[in-house]
Amino acid sequence: MSDEKTTVAELRKLVGDFVEERDWRQFHAPKNLSMALAIEAAELMEHFQWIGTEESRALPDDPQKLAEVGEELADVIAYSLALANELGLDISDTIRAKMAKNVAKYPASKFRSTAPPFDYGRPDAK
Amino acid sequence: MSDEKTTVAELRKLVGDFVEERDWRQFHAPKNLSMALAIEAAELMEHFQWIGTEESRALPDDPQKLAEVGEELADVIAYSLALANELGLDISDTIRAKMAKNVAKYPASKFRSTAPPFDYGRPDAK
Amino acid sequence: MSDEKTTVAELRKLVGDFVEERDWRQFHAPKNLSMALAIEAAELMEHFQWIGTEESRALPDDPQKLAEVGEELADVIAYSLALANELGLDISDTIRAKMAKNVAKYPASKFRSTAPPFDYGRPDAK
Amino acid sequence: MSDEKTTVAELRKLVGDFVEERDWRQFHAPKNLSMALAIEAAELMEHFQWIGTEESRALPDDPQKLAEVGEELADVIAYSLALANELGLDISDTIRAKMAKNVAKYPASKFRSTAPPFDYGRPDAK
Repeated sequence: MSDEKTTVAELRKLVGDFVEERDWRQFHAPKNLSMALAIEAAELMEHFQWIGTEESRALPDDPQKLAEVGEELADVIAYSLALANELGLDISDTIRAKMAKNVAKYPASKFRSTAPPFDYGRPDAK
Repeated sequence: MSDEKTTVAELRKLVGDFVEERDWRQFHAPKNLSMALAIEAAELMEHFQWIGTEESRALPDDPQKLAEVGEELADVIAYSLALANELGLDISDTIRAKMAKNVAKYPASKFRSTAPPFDYGRPDAK
Repeated sequence: MSDEKTTVAELRKLVGDFVEERDWRQFHAPKNLSMALAIEAAELMEHFQWIGTEESRALPDDPQKLAEVGEELADVIAYSLALANELGLDISDTIRAKMAKNVAKYPASKFRSTAPPFDYGRPDAK
Repeated sequence: MSDEKTTVAELRKLVGDFVEERDWRQFHAPKNLSMALAIEAAELMEHFQWIGTEESRALPDDPQKLAEVGEELADVIAYSLALANELGLDISDTIRAKMAKNVAKYPASKFRSTAPPFDYGRPDAK
Protein backbone atom coordinates (compact mmCIF):
# COMPACT_ATOMS: atom_id res chain seq x y z
CA MET A 1 0.00 0.00 0.00
CA SER A 2 1.21 3.43 -0.95
CA ASP A 3 -0.24 4.66 2.35
CA GLU A 4 2.64 2.85 4.12
CA LYS A 5 5.18 5.24 2.70
CA THR A 6 3.25 8.42 2.00
CA THR A 7 3.32 11.09 4.68
CA VAL A 8 0.39 13.35 5.43
CA ALA A 9 2.59 16.30 4.50
CA GLU A 10 3.12 14.93 0.99
CA LEU A 11 -0.65 14.80 0.39
CA ARG A 12 -1.07 18.28 1.87
CA LYS A 13 1.54 19.59 -0.55
CA LEU A 14 -0.17 17.89 -3.50
CA VAL A 15 -3.40 19.72 -2.71
CA GLY A 16 -1.66 22.95 -1.75
CA ASP A 17 0.25 23.11 -5.03
CA PHE A 18 -2.93 22.52 -7.04
CA VAL A 19 -4.61 25.43 -5.28
CA GLU A 20 -1.58 27.69 -5.54
CA GLU A 21 -1.11 27.07 -9.27
CA ARG A 22 -4.67 28.24 -9.92
CA ASP A 23 -4.44 31.13 -7.45
CA TRP A 24 -7.51 29.67 -5.77
CA ARG A 25 -6.65 30.51 -2.16
CA GLN A 26 -8.84 33.59 -2.68
CA PHE A 27 -11.81 31.19 -2.85
CA HIS A 28 -10.51 28.93 -0.08
CA ALA A 29 -11.85 30.90 2.87
CA PRO A 30 -12.43 28.36 5.67
CA LYS A 31 -16.18 29.04 5.48
CA ASN A 32 -16.23 28.08 1.80
CA LEU A 33 -14.05 25.02 2.36
CA SER A 34 -16.32 23.79 5.15
CA MET A 35 -19.21 23.95 2.67
CA ALA A 36 -17.22 22.21 -0.09
CA LEU A 37 -16.30 19.46 2.36
CA ALA A 38 -19.93 18.90 3.38
CA ILE A 39 -20.99 18.85 -0.27
CA GLU A 40 -18.42 16.18 -1.13
CA ALA A 41 -19.48 14.15 1.93
CA ALA A 42 -23.04 14.25 0.56
CA GLU A 43 -21.87 13.07 -2.87
CA LEU A 44 -20.18 10.16 -1.15
CA MET A 45 -23.39 9.40 0.73
CA GLU A 46 -25.37 9.49 -2.51
CA HIS A 47 -23.95 6.07 -3.40
CA PHE A 48 -25.39 4.55 -0.25
CA GLN A 49 -28.77 6.26 0.09
CA TRP A 50 -31.01 3.57 -1.42
CA ILE A 51 -29.15 0.40 -0.45
CA GLY A 52 -29.42 -1.53 2.81
CA THR A 53 -26.91 -1.19 5.59
CA GLU A 54 -25.52 -4.70 5.28
CA GLU A 55 -25.67 -4.53 1.49
CA SER A 56 -23.30 -1.57 1.65
CA ARG A 57 -20.57 -3.87 2.99
CA ALA A 58 -20.46 -5.61 -0.38
CA LEU A 59 -19.70 -2.44 -2.32
CA PRO A 60 -15.98 -3.27 -2.71
CA ASP A 61 -17.01 -6.34 -4.76
CA ASP A 62 -18.06 -4.01 -7.59
CA PRO A 63 -14.84 -2.42 -8.93
CA GLN A 64 -16.71 0.29 -10.86
CA LYS A 65 -18.72 1.35 -7.80
CA LEU A 66 -15.63 1.18 -5.62
CA ALA A 67 -13.79 3.50 -8.00
CA GLU A 68 -16.66 6.00 -7.93
CA VAL A 69 -16.88 5.96 -4.16
CA GLY A 70 -13.09 6.23 -3.98
CA GLU A 71 -13.20 9.43 -6.03
CA GLU A 72 -15.72 11.00 -3.67
CA LEU A 73 -13.69 9.95 -0.64
CA ALA A 74 -10.62 11.47 -2.30
CA ASP A 75 -12.56 14.74 -2.70
CA VAL A 76 -13.55 14.72 0.98
CA ILE A 77 -9.98 14.13 2.11
CA ALA A 78 -8.56 16.65 -0.36
CA TYR A 79 -10.81 19.40 1.03
CA SER A 80 -9.89 18.32 4.57
CA LEU A 81 -6.25 18.79 3.65
CA ALA A 82 -6.99 22.13 1.99
CA LEU A 83 -8.75 23.31 5.15
CA ALA A 84 -5.85 22.17 7.33
CA ASN A 85 -3.55 24.11 4.99
CA GLU A 86 -5.62 27.28 5.39
CA LEU A 87 -5.91 26.93 9.16
CA GLY A 88 -2.29 25.90 9.71
CA LEU A 89 -3.35 22.80 11.65
CA ASP A 90 -1.12 19.76 12.07
CA ILE A 91 -3.44 16.91 11.11
CA SER A 92 -1.53 14.07 12.72
CA ASP A 93 -1.28 15.75 16.10
CA THR A 94 -4.91 16.87 15.96
CA ILE A 95 -6.14 13.35 15.19
CA ARG A 96 -3.92 11.79 17.87
CA ALA A 97 -5.28 14.23 20.46
CA LYS A 98 -8.90 13.61 19.42
CA MET A 99 -8.49 9.83 19.41
CA ALA A 100 -6.96 9.98 22.91
CA LYS A 101 -10.01 11.93 24.03
CA ASN A 102 -12.29 9.32 22.44
CA VAL A 103 -10.41 6.52 24.18
CA ALA A 104 -11.03 8.21 27.53
CA LYS A 105 -14.66 9.00 26.77
CA TYR A 106 -15.59 5.61 25.32
CA PRO A 107 -13.51 3.06 27.25
CA ALA A 108 -13.29 -0.28 25.44
CA SER A 109 -14.28 -2.07 28.65
CA LYS A 110 -17.61 -0.27 28.72
CA PHE A 111 -18.42 0.17 25.03
CA ARG A 112 -17.21 -3.15 23.62
CA SER A 113 -19.85 -4.46 21.16
CA THR A 114 -22.26 -1.74 22.26
CA ALA A 115 -23.52 0.63 19.62
CA PRO A 116 -21.96 4.08 19.84
CA PRO A 117 -24.44 6.50 21.44
CA PHE A 118 -26.51 8.27 18.79
CA ASP A 119 -24.85 11.59 19.53
CA TYR A 120 -21.37 10.05 19.64
CA GLY A 121 -19.03 12.58 18.13
CA ARG A 122 -21.18 15.58 18.95
CA PRO A 123 -19.06 18.15 20.77
CA ASP A 124 -19.63 18.34 24.51
CA ALA A 125 -22.09 20.97 25.61
CA LYS A 126 -20.41 24.00 27.11
CA MET B 1 5.09 19.47 11.90
CA SER B 2 4.23 15.95 12.85
CA ASP B 3 2.59 15.60 9.41
CA GLU B 4 6.12 15.59 7.93
CA LYS B 5 6.92 12.23 9.48
CA THR B 6 3.54 10.58 9.96
CA THR B 7 2.40 8.20 7.23
CA VAL B 8 -1.22 7.83 6.21
CA ALA B 9 -0.99 4.17 7.25
CA GLU B 10 -0.10 5.16 10.81
CA LEU B 11 -3.24 7.25 11.13
CA ARG B 12 -5.33 4.49 9.52
CA LYS B 13 -4.00 2.05 12.12
CA LEU B 14 -4.76 4.45 14.97
CA VAL B 15 -8.40 4.60 13.90
CA GLY B 16 -8.56 0.90 13.01
CA ASP B 17 -7.29 -0.17 16.44
CA PHE B 18 -9.81 2.07 18.20
CA VAL B 19 -12.63 0.45 16.25
CA GLU B 20 -11.28 -3.09 16.71
CA GLU B 21 -10.83 -2.72 20.47
CA ARG B 22 -14.52 -1.82 20.81
CA ASP B 23 -15.68 -4.45 18.33
CA TRP B 24 -17.35 -1.61 16.44
CA ARG B 25 -16.81 -2.87 12.90
CA GLN B 26 -20.30 -4.31 13.18
CA PHE B 27 -21.58 -0.70 13.17
CA HIS B 28 -19.09 0.47 10.56
CA ALA B 29 -21.03 -0.56 7.48
CA PRO B 30 -19.98 1.84 4.69
CA LYS B 31 -23.51 3.24 4.58
CA ASN B 32 -23.32 4.17 8.27
CA LEU B 33 -19.83 5.61 7.94
CA SER B 34 -20.90 7.78 5.02
CA MET B 35 -23.59 9.23 7.27
CA ALA B 36 -21.21 9.72 10.19
CA LEU B 37 -18.79 11.51 7.89
CA ALA B 38 -21.49 13.89 6.62
CA ILE B 39 -22.63 14.57 10.17
CA GLU B 40 -19.12 15.51 11.27
CA ALA B 41 -18.72 17.71 8.20
CA ALA B 42 -21.89 19.53 9.30
CA GLU B 43 -20.53 20.00 12.83
CA LEU B 44 -17.43 21.54 11.30
CA MET B 45 -19.61 23.82 9.20
CA GLU B 46 -21.57 24.88 12.29
CA HIS B 47 -18.63 27.05 13.35
CA PHE B 48 -18.81 29.04 10.13
CA GLN B 49 -22.54 29.36 9.50
CA TRP B 50 -23.14 32.84 10.90
CA ILE B 51 -19.83 34.54 10.14
CA GLY B 52 -18.79 36.25 6.92
CA THR B 53 -16.64 34.58 4.31
CA GLU B 54 -13.63 36.85 4.82
CA GLU B 55 -14.13 36.86 8.58
CA SER B 56 -13.66 33.09 8.53
CA ARG B 57 -10.04 33.56 7.44
CA ALA B 58 -9.28 35.06 10.85
CA LEU B 59 -10.46 32.01 12.77
CA PRO B 60 -6.91 30.75 13.46
CA ASP B 61 -6.32 33.94 15.49
CA ASP B 62 -8.64 32.58 18.18
CA PRO B 63 -6.86 29.57 19.74
CA GLN B 64 -10.01 28.29 21.45
CA LYS B 65 -12.04 28.40 18.22
CA LEU B 66 -9.17 26.85 16.29
CA ALA B 67 -9.03 23.95 18.76
CA GLU B 68 -12.77 23.36 18.41
CA VAL B 69 -12.64 23.44 14.63
CA GLY B 70 -9.58 21.20 14.73
CA GLU B 71 -11.51 18.58 16.70
CA GLU B 72 -14.29 18.52 14.12
CA LEU B 73 -11.79 18.28 11.28
CA ALA B 74 -10.13 15.39 13.14
CA ASP B 75 -13.52 13.65 13.31
CA VAL B 76 -14.07 14.11 9.58
CA ILE B 77 -10.65 12.71 8.73
CA ALA B 78 -10.97 9.87 11.25
CA TYR B 79 -14.23 8.70 9.63
CA SER B 80 -12.62 9.05 6.20
CA LEU B 81 -9.84 6.75 7.38
CA ALA B 82 -12.35 4.33 8.90
CA LEU B 83 -14.23 4.19 5.60
CA ALA B 84 -11.01 3.60 3.66
CA ASN B 85 -10.27 0.78 6.12
CA GLU B 86 -13.67 -0.84 5.50
CA LEU B 87 -13.45 -0.45 1.72
CA GLY B 88 -9.80 -1.48 1.47
CA LEU B 89 -8.90 1.66 -0.47
CA ASP B 90 -5.39 3.05 -0.66
CA ILE B 91 -5.91 6.71 0.18
CA SER B 92 -2.66 8.09 -1.23
CA ASP B 93 -3.09 6.45 -4.61
CA THR B 94 -6.77 7.41 -4.77
CA ILE B 95 -6.00 11.07 -4.01
CA ARG B 96 -3.12 11.17 -6.48
CA ALA B 97 -5.35 9.75 -9.22
CA LYS B 98 -8.16 12.22 -8.44
CA MET B 99 -5.84 15.21 -8.32
CA ALA B 100 -4.33 14.20 -11.69
CA LYS B 101 -7.87 14.13 -13.08
CA ASN B 102 -8.54 17.58 -11.60
CA VAL B 103 -5.34 18.94 -13.13
CA ALA B 104 -6.51 17.75 -16.56
CA LYS B 105 -10.06 19.02 -16.08
CA TYR B 106 -9.15 22.41 -14.63
CA PRO B 107 -5.91 23.44 -16.35
CA ALA B 108 -4.10 26.19 -14.47
CA SER B 109 -3.74 28.17 -17.69
CA LYS B 110 -7.51 28.41 -18.05
CA PHE B 111 -8.69 28.56 -14.45
CA ARG B 112 -6.04 30.76 -12.88
CA SER B 113 -7.75 33.31 -10.60
CA THR B 114 -11.14 32.25 -11.93
CA ALA B 115 -13.68 30.96 -9.44
CA PRO B 116 -14.15 27.19 -9.62
CA PRO B 117 -17.43 26.43 -11.44
CA PHE B 118 -20.29 26.08 -8.97
CA ASP B 119 -20.57 22.36 -9.64
CA TYR B 120 -16.83 21.82 -9.49
CA GLY B 121 -16.28 18.46 -7.89
CA ARG B 122 -19.62 17.05 -8.90
CA PRO B 123 -19.05 13.68 -10.60
CA ASP B 124 -19.34 13.74 -14.38
CA ALA B 125 -22.74 12.80 -15.71
CA LYS B 126 -22.86 9.30 -17.13
CA MET C 1 -54.38 16.84 11.43
CA SER C 2 -53.55 20.49 11.67
CA ASP C 3 -51.83 20.19 8.29
CA GLU C 4 -55.32 19.89 6.73
CA LYS C 5 -56.14 23.47 7.57
CA THR C 6 -52.78 25.21 7.80
CA THR C 7 -51.56 26.99 4.70
CA VAL C 8 -47.92 27.18 3.72
CA ALA C 9 -48.18 30.97 4.01
CA GLU C 10 -49.16 30.71 7.68
CA LEU C 11 -46.01 28.71 8.47
CA ARG C 12 -43.89 31.11 6.42
CA LYS C 13 -45.26 34.01 8.43
CA LEU C 14 -44.59 32.22 11.73
CA VAL C 15 -40.91 31.87 10.80
CA GLY C 16 -40.73 35.32 9.20
CA ASP C 17 -42.09 37.04 12.31
CA PHE C 18 -39.62 35.22 14.55
CA VAL C 19 -36.74 36.43 12.39
CA GLU C 20 -38.10 39.96 12.10
CA GLU C 21 -38.64 40.36 15.87
CA ARG C 22 -34.97 39.54 16.46
CA ASP C 23 -33.76 41.64 13.54
CA TRP C 24 -32.03 38.50 12.28
CA ARG C 25 -32.49 39.03 8.55
CA GLN C 26 -28.99 40.51 8.63
CA PHE C 27 -27.72 36.97 9.36
CA HIS C 28 -30.15 35.30 6.98
CA ALA C 29 -28.12 35.70 3.80
CA PRO C 30 -29.11 32.79 1.52
CA LYS C 31 -25.57 31.41 1.78
CA ASN C 32 -25.85 31.22 5.56
CA LEU C 33 -29.34 29.74 5.43
CA SER C 34 -28.21 27.03 3.02
CA MET C 35 -25.57 26.06 5.58
CA ALA C 36 -28.02 26.15 8.49
CA LEU C 37 -30.38 23.94 6.52
CA ALA C 38 -27.66 21.36 5.80
CA ILE C 39 -26.61 21.40 9.45
CA GLU C 40 -30.15 20.69 10.62
CA ALA C 41 -30.47 17.91 8.04
CA ALA C 42 -27.34 16.36 9.55
CA GLU C 43 -28.79 16.59 13.06
CA LEU C 44 -31.86 14.77 11.81
CA MET C 45 -29.64 12.12 10.26
CA GLU C 46 -27.76 11.72 13.53
CA HIS C 47 -30.73 9.79 14.91
CA PHE C 48 -30.47 7.20 12.16
CA GLN C 49 -26.72 6.77 11.70
CA TRP C 50 -26.18 3.61 13.79
CA ILE C 51 -29.47 1.81 13.28
CA GLY C 52 -30.43 -0.50 10.43
CA THR C 53 -32.51 0.62 7.49
CA GLU C 54 -35.54 -1.50 8.36
CA GLU C 55 -35.12 -0.77 12.06
CA SER C 56 -35.59 2.91 11.25
CA ARG C 57 -39.17 2.22 10.19
CA ALA C 58 -40.02 1.41 13.81
CA LEU C 59 -38.88 4.78 15.11
CA PRO C 60 -42.46 6.14 15.46
CA ASP C 61 -43.11 3.42 18.07
CA ASP C 62 -40.85 5.29 20.48
CA PRO C 63 -42.66 8.56 21.37
CA GLN C 64 -39.55 10.14 22.88
CA LYS C 65 -37.44 9.40 19.80
CA LEU C 66 -40.25 10.54 17.52
CA ALA C 67 -40.45 13.85 19.36
CA GLU C 68 -36.69 14.39 19.01
CA VAL C 69 -36.73 13.57 15.32
CA GLY C 70 -39.79 15.78 14.89
CA GLU C 71 -37.90 18.73 16.35
CA GLU C 72 -35.06 18.28 13.90
CA LEU C 73 -37.48 17.96 11.00
CA ALA C 74 -39.18 21.14 12.20
CA ASP C 75 -35.80 22.90 12.11
CA VAL C 76 -35.15 21.70 8.56
CA ILE C 77 -38.54 22.91 7.37
CA ALA C 78 -38.28 26.18 9.28
CA TYR C 79 -34.99 27.02 7.56
CA SER C 80 -36.51 26.00 4.22
CA LEU C 81 -39.32 28.48 4.85
CA ALA C 82 -36.83 31.16 5.93
CA LEU C 83 -34.88 30.65 2.72
CA ALA C 84 -38.05 30.84 0.62
CA ASN C 85 -38.84 34.08 2.46
CA GLU C 86 -35.45 35.56 1.62
CA LEU C 87 -35.56 34.43 -2.01
CA GLY C 88 -39.20 35.40 -2.56
CA LEU C 89 -40.06 31.94 -3.86
CA ASP C 90 -43.57 30.53 -3.85
CA ILE C 91 -43.06 27.11 -2.30
CA SER C 92 -46.29 25.47 -3.48
CA ASP C 93 -45.77 26.41 -7.12
CA THR C 94 -42.10 25.43 -6.99
CA ILE C 95 -42.89 22.00 -5.55
CA ARG C 96 -45.72 21.42 -8.02
CA ALA C 97 -43.41 22.26 -10.93
CA LYS C 98 -40.62 20.03 -9.62
CA MET C 99 -42.97 17.10 -8.96
CA ALA C 100 -44.36 17.42 -12.49
CA LYS C 101 -40.80 17.22 -13.78
CA ASN C 102 -40.18 14.13 -11.64
CA VAL C 103 -43.35 12.50 -12.96
CA ALA C 104 -42.08 12.98 -16.51
CA LYS C 105 -38.55 11.85 -15.71
CA TYR C 106 -39.51 8.81 -13.66
CA PRO C 107 -42.70 7.46 -15.21
CA ALA C 108 -44.56 5.11 -12.86
CA SER C 109 -44.84 2.54 -15.65
CA LYS C 110 -41.07 2.26 -15.86
CA PHE C 111 -39.98 2.83 -12.28
CA ARG C 112 -42.68 0.97 -10.36
CA SER C 113 -41.02 -1.09 -7.60
CA THR C 114 -37.60 -0.29 -9.02
CA ALA C 115 -35.14 1.48 -6.76
CA PRO C 116 -34.64 5.14 -7.66
CA PRO C 117 -31.32 5.54 -9.53
CA PHE C 118 -28.53 6.37 -7.10
CA ASP C 119 -28.19 9.87 -8.47
CA TYR C 120 -31.95 10.42 -8.54
CA GLY C 121 -32.52 14.03 -7.63
CA ARG C 122 -29.16 15.24 -8.83
CA PRO C 123 -29.68 18.19 -11.16
CA ASP C 124 -29.29 17.40 -14.84
CA ALA C 125 -25.85 18.11 -16.24
CA LYS C 126 -25.72 21.25 -18.33
CA MET D 1 -48.96 33.61 -3.96
CA SER D 2 -50.16 30.06 -4.24
CA ASP D 3 -48.79 29.51 -0.71
CA GLU D 4 -51.71 31.64 0.57
CA LYS D 5 -54.23 29.01 -0.40
CA THR D 6 -52.27 25.76 -0.41
CA THR D 7 -52.43 23.67 2.74
CA VAL D 8 -49.52 21.60 4.00
CA ALA D 9 -51.71 18.52 3.59
CA GLU D 10 -52.11 19.19 -0.12
CA LEU D 11 -48.35 19.21 -0.64
CA ARG D 12 -47.97 16.09 1.52
CA LYS D 13 -50.51 14.31 -0.66
CA LEU D 14 -48.75 15.40 -3.85
CA VAL D 15 -45.54 13.77 -2.64
CA GLY D 16 -47.32 10.77 -1.10
CA ASP D 17 -49.14 9.97 -4.34
CA PHE D 18 -45.92 10.17 -6.34
CA VAL D 19 -44.28 7.67 -4.00
CA GLU D 20 -47.31 5.38 -3.89
CA GLU D 21 -47.70 5.26 -7.68
CA ARG D 22 -44.10 3.99 -7.99
CA ASP D 23 -44.41 1.63 -5.02
CA TRP D 24 -41.39 3.42 -3.58
CA ARG D 25 -42.34 3.29 0.09
CA GLN D 26 -40.15 0.19 0.25
CA PHE D 27 -37.15 2.52 -0.31
CA HIS D 28 -38.51 5.27 1.92
CA ALA D 29 -37.25 3.93 5.23
CA PRO D 30 -36.73 6.97 7.48
CA LYS D 31 -32.98 6.27 7.54
CA ASN D 32 -32.84 6.49 3.73
CA LEU D 33 -35.02 9.59 3.63
CA SER D 34 -32.81 11.36 6.18
CA MET D 35 -29.87 10.73 3.85
CA ALA D 36 -31.78 11.87 0.76
CA LEU D 37 -32.75 15.05 2.59
CA ALA D 38 -29.15 15.81 3.57
CA ILE D 39 -28.00 15.15 0.01
CA GLU D 40 -30.54 17.60 -1.41
CA ALA D 41 -29.54 20.18 1.21
CA ALA D 42 -25.96 19.82 -0.03
CA GLU D 43 -27.03 20.30 -3.65
CA LEU D 44 -28.78 23.49 -2.58
CA MET D 45 -25.62 24.60 -0.81
CA GLU D 46 -23.55 23.90 -3.93
CA HIS D 47 -24.96 27.07 -5.50
CA PHE D 48 -23.57 29.18 -2.67
CA GLN D 49 -20.22 27.59 -1.92
CA TRP D 50 -17.93 29.92 -3.87
CA ILE D 51 -19.80 33.22 -3.59
CA GLY D 52 -19.61 35.74 -0.77
CA THR D 53 -22.19 35.96 1.98
CA GLU D 54 -23.57 39.35 0.94
CA GLU D 55 -23.32 38.43 -2.75
CA SER D 56 -25.71 35.56 -2.07
CA ARG D 57 -28.47 38.07 -1.26
CA ALA D 58 -28.49 39.12 -4.91
CA LEU D 59 -29.21 35.62 -6.21
CA PRO D 60 -32.92 36.35 -6.84
CA ASP D 61 -31.83 38.95 -9.43
CA ASP D 62 -30.72 36.11 -11.71
CA PRO D 63 -33.90 34.28 -12.81
CA GLN D 64 -31.99 31.23 -14.11
CA LYS D 65 -30.06 30.83 -10.85
CA LEU D 66 -33.21 31.40 -8.83
CA ALA D 67 -34.98 28.65 -10.76
CA GLU D 68 -32.12 26.22 -10.12
CA VAL D 69 -32.00 27.01 -6.42
CA GLY D 70 -35.78 26.77 -6.29
CA GLU D 71 -35.63 23.23 -7.67
CA GLU D 72 -33.18 22.16 -4.99
CA LEU D 73 -35.27 23.77 -2.28
CA ALA D 74 -38.31 21.94 -3.68
CA ASP D 75 -36.37 18.67 -3.37
CA VAL D 76 -35.47 19.42 0.25
CA ILE D 77 -39.06 20.21 1.16
CA ALA D 78 -40.43 17.25 -0.81
CA TYR D 79 -38.21 14.84 1.15
CA SER D 80 -39.22 16.59 4.38
CA LEU D 81 -42.85 15.94 3.48
CA ALA D 82 -42.08 12.33 2.53
CA LEU D 83 -40.40 11.80 5.89
CA ALA D 84 -43.34 13.35 7.74
CA ASN D 85 -45.58 10.99 5.78
CA GLU D 86 -43.54 7.95 6.85
CA LEU D 87 -43.32 9.05 10.48
CA GLY D 88 -46.97 10.16 10.73
CA LEU D 89 -45.95 13.59 12.03
CA ASP D 90 -48.18 16.65 11.79
CA ILE D 91 -45.82 19.25 10.36
CA SER D 92 -47.78 22.36 11.33
CA ASP D 93 -48.10 21.36 14.97
CA THR D 94 -44.49 20.25 15.13
CA ILE D 95 -43.23 23.54 13.73
CA ARG D 96 -45.51 25.59 15.99
CA ALA D 97 -44.21 23.71 19.04
CA LYS D 98 -40.59 24.13 17.98
CA MET D 99 -40.97 27.83 17.23
CA ALA D 100 -42.61 28.38 20.65
CA LYS D 101 -39.58 26.69 22.20
CA ASN D 102 -37.26 28.94 20.19
CA VAL D 103 -39.18 32.03 21.30
CA ALA D 104 -38.66 31.03 24.93
CA LYS D 105 -34.99 30.12 24.43
CA TYR D 106 -34.04 33.16 22.38
CA PRO D 107 -36.17 36.04 23.70
CA ALA D 108 -36.33 38.94 21.27
CA SER D 109 -35.43 41.35 24.09
CA LYS D 110 -32.10 39.62 24.60
CA PHE D 111 -31.20 38.46 21.09
CA ARG D 112 -32.34 41.42 19.04
CA SER D 113 -29.66 42.23 16.43
CA THR D 114 -27.28 39.79 18.10
CA ALA D 115 -25.94 36.94 16.00
CA PRO D 116 -27.52 33.61 16.84
CA PRO D 117 -25.07 31.55 18.96
CA PHE D 118 -22.95 29.30 16.75
CA ASP D 119 -24.64 26.18 18.07
CA TYR D 120 -28.10 27.68 17.82
CA GLY D 121 -30.42 24.91 16.77
CA ARG D 122 -28.30 22.14 18.21
CA PRO D 123 -30.49 19.97 20.45
CA ASP D 124 -30.05 20.52 24.18
CA ALA D 125 -27.61 18.17 25.83
CA LYS D 126 -29.34 15.46 27.83
